[in-house]
Amino acid sequence: MSPYVNLSTWISDEGPEQDVVLSSRVRLARNIEGIAYPNNARKEELETVTKCVQEAAKNINKDKLHYINMDNLPEIEKGLLVEKNMVSPEFAKKGSKNGILLNNSEKISVMINEEDHLRIQVFMPGLQLNKALDMADELDDDLESSLDYAYSKKWGYLSACPTNLGTGLRGSVMVHLPALNFTDSIAKMLEAVSKLGLVVRGIYGEGSKSIGNIYQISNQITMGSTEKDIINNLESVTQKIIEQERRARNNLMKNNEIKLKDKIKRSFGILKYAHTISSNEAMRLLSNVKLGIDMGIIDIVNTRLMSKLIILIRPCHLQKNVDNELSAEERDIIRAELIQSKLNV
Amino acid sequence: MSPYVNLSTWISDEGPEQDVVLSSRVRLARNIEGIAYPNNARKEELETVTKCVQEAAKNINKDKLHYINMDNLPEIEKGLLVEKNMVSPEFAKKGSKNGILLNNSEKISVMINEEDHLRIQVFMPGLQLNKALDMADELDDDLESSLDYAYSKKWGYLSACPTNLGTGLRGSVMVHLPALNFTDSIAKMLEAVSKLGLVVRGIYGEGSKSIGNIYQISNQITMGSTEKDIINNLESVTQKIIEQERRARNNLMKNNEIKLKDKIKRSFGILKYAHTISSNEAMRLLSNVKLGIDMGIIDIVNTRLMSKLIILIRPCHLQKNVDNELSAEERDIIRAELIQSKLNV
Repeated sequence: MSPYVNLSTWISDEGPEQDVVLSSRVRLARNIEGIAYPNNARKEELETVTKCVQEAAKNINKDKLHYINMDNLPEIEKGLLVEKNMVSPEFAKKGSKNGILLNNSEKISVMINEEDHLRIQVFMPGLQLNKALDMADELDDDLESSLDYAYSKKWGYLSACPTNLGTGLRGSVMVHLPALNFTDSIAKMLEAVSKLGLVVRGIYGEGSKSIGNIYQISNQITMGSTEKDIINNLESVTQKIIEQERRARNNLMKNNEIKLKDKIKRSFGILKYAHTISSNEAMRLLSNVKLGIDMGIIDIVNTRLMSKLIILIRPCHLQKNVDNELSAEERDIIRAELIQSKLNV
Repeated sequence: MSPYVNLSTWISDEGPEQDVVLSSRVRLARNIEGIAYPNNARKEELETVTKCVQEAAKNINKDKLHYINMDNLPEIEKGLLVEKNMVSPEFAKKGSKNGILLNNSEKISVMINEEDHLRIQVFMPGLQLNKALDMADELDDDLESSLDYAYSKKWGYLSACPTNLGTGLRGSVMVHLPALNFTDSIAKMLEAVSKLGLVVRGIYGEGSKSIGNIYQISNQITMGSTEKDIINNLESVTQKIIEQERRARNNLMKNNEIKLKDKIKRSFGILKYAHTISSNEAMRLLSNVKLGIDMGIIDIVNTRLMSKLIILIRPCHLQKNVDNELSAEERDIIRAELIQSKLNV
């Protein structure tokens, strides 16, 4: 089995503050001096970029990166990479002279010829923004030793889109906020967050709605601050959100214990026995079950179950499991079976 | 522990046609010559009746009957007897010079000084009307050897209410008809049944609605036919209903397999994990689960589960379990726990 059909360790491993923070991500946008940005580049230029970056990666021995050529990849394998957030949906669609570097744990992914020549991404379980930044910086330095990055003293790192100028850094956290959602305090919290220079999105990136009470929070501004400051700001806002969510959970337990426990346990029962289940319903129920695990109401499954299942129940992962194309109706049945197999451990 | 807090064997034992028929019951109404019917009798007359019947019961050696004096019985114990159908609710409320004879398996119960001096009842699991009639007749003969029954050559056995004149026989079956209910054919079926001289009621007797797709079917007319004919008519109509219900189940499986399986399995999951559950919801879900067991969709629990649980989840049985008075809210939680303990075997 190819390495990219396994579940990345940042999805399954435990991490700090994992009762609220599913995962942290840091990405750096980088471009090579003297070559047009991918969307304006000629084929040969794109080829030059992939070659240079692959060559630069070979010199890095610490955490071996392997290259996956997107051009030759079957659609299902591309879909798997998208569903694991290793690549963006737009990147998977391109399929011309683009590819990625992945390490074995899949904590590191470098998209080559996405919107920028390089998109260095580091994923970590739980709240580990600083660690993710350190790892990204280290890889960035290693690559920079062989690559000539486009850099201006005035603007910092140059990028295809001006919103990435400067540090080229986007930090983000995936947070699970069921209690804030139940108590209707989510809107107020999200408003406050956006005033702090941060953006809130649904689970599948820009424009996507929240499913399963999961929100992605990331920095808006990449310029005028140091990398450290950007990450520390995001981290401290996240800490405040964690506090609020935990307080909301305690209040729920104090004021609505019976209803809360009932909702959570029934969600578990339905997930465990349903014959067929849609993706949206599964996400909604998984959210309840994760809340139950994190509040000590359910103790037979691990809290990482949700972060694993939200990947595993997506269409390409389901199809990969049965090695077959599936109709929507079949998918709902296979999804129910898959969830049950994971709940029976 | 007194014998009357155990679950009667007719509730837990297996029986013929148990996929549709939960249980069969036969009762004979008898009165003693020269004594006023209970509702018009003086205290001393009622006492005479209980004494005579107790005395007569002592001479029966085959299946030892023990006497329970309703006058001295705590409310909770009366409630248990009602919930197991050993006595009628009206009989339990009386509490003056009345009592019952029960055998150990609780297949036989004789109410003394209900509406009539004697109400001999025999309960059997599944469809066993003829066997129940034989047992009732045998007990009736044994008692008659010491008691002087009120009998007229013209009218047969005399009874307090004219609707019981003649044979004094009421046969009934408790049937589970979920598929006929799902497919909306139940109304037509029930109409046909009432044209055949039978009466359909909900699970808790006269005037009660059907809960959990359970219906009680019994003969209307007690006079002008022999006991055998009355029972054979009821049995043959029941056989037809069984056929129709089974056909409706097969059709459901053919036309709605996914939806059917999903509904049944989810019902099982909710019963297994709910934190709190009302009696009505439990009955509805238990009905789905029994259907699933009988159709081979669920194979980890026995089909008698439902007939046991519909007794065990009733208020007095729940309270007896925890040996404590319970609020409605507490009852719903204890009910959920009880169901789960029975589903975990």
